[in-house]
Amino acid sequence: MSTTRRPAVRVPVVRDGKKTFDEVITEEPLQIRVNDTDLAVTMRTPGHDFELAVGFCRTEGLLTGTEDLAEVRYCLAAELDAEQEYNVVTLATRRPVDLEGHRRVVAASSACGICGKATLDQIAVACTPVAPGPVVDRTALFALPDTLRTAQTVFEATGGLHAAGLFTPEGALRVLREDVGRHNAVDKIVGHAVMAGWLPLSDSVLMVSGRLSFEIVQKAAVAGIPIVAAVSAPSSLAVATAQRFEQTLVGFLRDGRGNVYTHPERIDLEGD
Amino acid sequence: MSTTRRPAVRVPVVRDGKKTFDEVITEEPLQIRVNDTDLAVTMRTPGHDFELAVGFCRTEGLLTGTEDLAEVRYCLAAELDAEQEYNVVTLATRRPVDLEGHRRVVAASSACGICGKATLDQIAVACTPVAPGPVVDRTALFALPDTLRTAQTVFEATGGLHAAGLFTPEGALRVLREDVGRHNAVDKIVGHAVMAGWLPLSDSVLMVSGRLSFEIVQKAAVAGIPIVAAVSAPSSLAVATAQRFEQTLVGFLRDGRGNVYTHPERIDLEGD
Repeated sequence: MSTTRRPAVRVPVVRDGKKTFDEVITEEPLQIRVNDTDLAVTMRTPGHDFELAVGFCRTEGLLTGTEDLAEVRYCLAAELDAEQEYNVVTLATRRPVDLEGHRRVVAASSACGICGKATLDQIAVACTPVAPGPVVDRTALFALPDTLRTAQTVFEATGGLHAAGLFTPEGALRVLREDVGRHNAVDKIVGHAVMAGWLPLSDSVLMVSGRLSFEIVQKAAVAGIPIVAAVSAPSSLAVATAQRFEQTLVGFLRDGRGNVYTHPERIDLEGD
Repeated sequence: MSTTRRPAVRVPVVRDGKKTFDEVITEEPLQIRVNDTDLAVTMRTPGHDFELAVGFCRTEGLLTGTEDLAEVRYCLAAELDAEQEYNVVTLATRRPVDLEGHRRVVAASSACGICGKATLDQIAVACTPVAPGPVVDRTALFALPDTLRTAQTVFEATGGLHAAGLFTPEGALRVLREDVGRHNAVDKIVGHAVMAGWLPLSDSVLMVSGRLSFEIVQKAAVAGIPIVAAVSAPSSLAVATAQRFEQTLVGFLRDGRGNVYTHPERIDLEGD
């Protein structure tokens, strides 16, 4: 499901220009419905769709936890095209939610979590600073990228999937999710945690394979994650958001190095 | 403007744990208003904001060309916070546009162009297949990544900006734009082309630094670009979209190689 075979002509031409086949990342729309109302469409890699829908609703503030969730299922309405058969997920909540208010300001995409917010004031989801949380030693921190990479079996085949991993403070992988959209991978992790009753994730570290943008840090803050790390660079707003929610932000974590931008007290800087 | 200095602690600790400074990519919200109504907020790297706003409106179908555009300017309303002073751009159109209909289904983010579409039917912007366009020879095609990379002066400093370049069929760079969001870089190029009166871009090649997702290909189709290339992998929906709009899609274009996924007749496969 994560990859799709597509014909491709390689240049320079080999094999007399005959088409070969290339595995490409599957990207398909997922429409999320809540209580029979369309909420948003996100471009995602199929797989863990229920987690994605639940995580999206949680990080957007529509759900607080499993207690709000009555049902999550594929919508297999007869009027859907066959190719969209598993592209609509519908959630039912136990309490009414102000969907119309949200519908206007919330939406999704394969790579963002702030879409559809029509004014600057609506960008910051209501969220409080995270708990002080654990201290992680350097060795455990430096091991995260390899653990994530090793677990990411699909990556080698396609070269295009973002990964997000939720780790214990000792560096053990709790859950790994991949997606064509970096923030979908994080929503899948949050959705998994919601359904497993793990929230808030005060004793966890989130590691992502790419860059750190505003929305990744904010989604982590909503889930209560105190330490967020990435292989690549953070943006200025990612740093400012981590500062605001009192999270530890680590960028360029690779090859036994890293840059700690905020709240370094959660990293054992001198330890082994 | 593209980068911001932020303190960072490097691990392993050097210089007695004193903070050093790191250049990080600037990411700030840009609110786009049309005829005094809030349309969308996109997370972007400041710079070429008018192009971004105009390009976004064009690729979302709110503008057809310069003839529709009466004015584009920063909104310097007294009630704005000082830090948001250059984060609101307002457009005025010569003809009324159905903004309320669009407001419900359109939005933006640092990495997508389909945000806020509330149903699957609304994803595909009305768009016709591109013109047959030029044939590009291999040598010109293979030179694009280096030309783009060389022109991307900021990249070295931060490691985090996406680039998009518009090229002639001979491989000459017409315009380069960068952004923290890949589709913002494309919208900036389209906005530049709208304001320069270049549309449709039937004789152009678009090259992007990262992956190819659905929205990049669709934005290129709206602007009439027949050839779209990227350093990295396309998604399945990017391939399907290029097929639908009859565009040539080239992925993994680097080191003198590339994979042509659709319409290879625009690439001179046998030439020098």
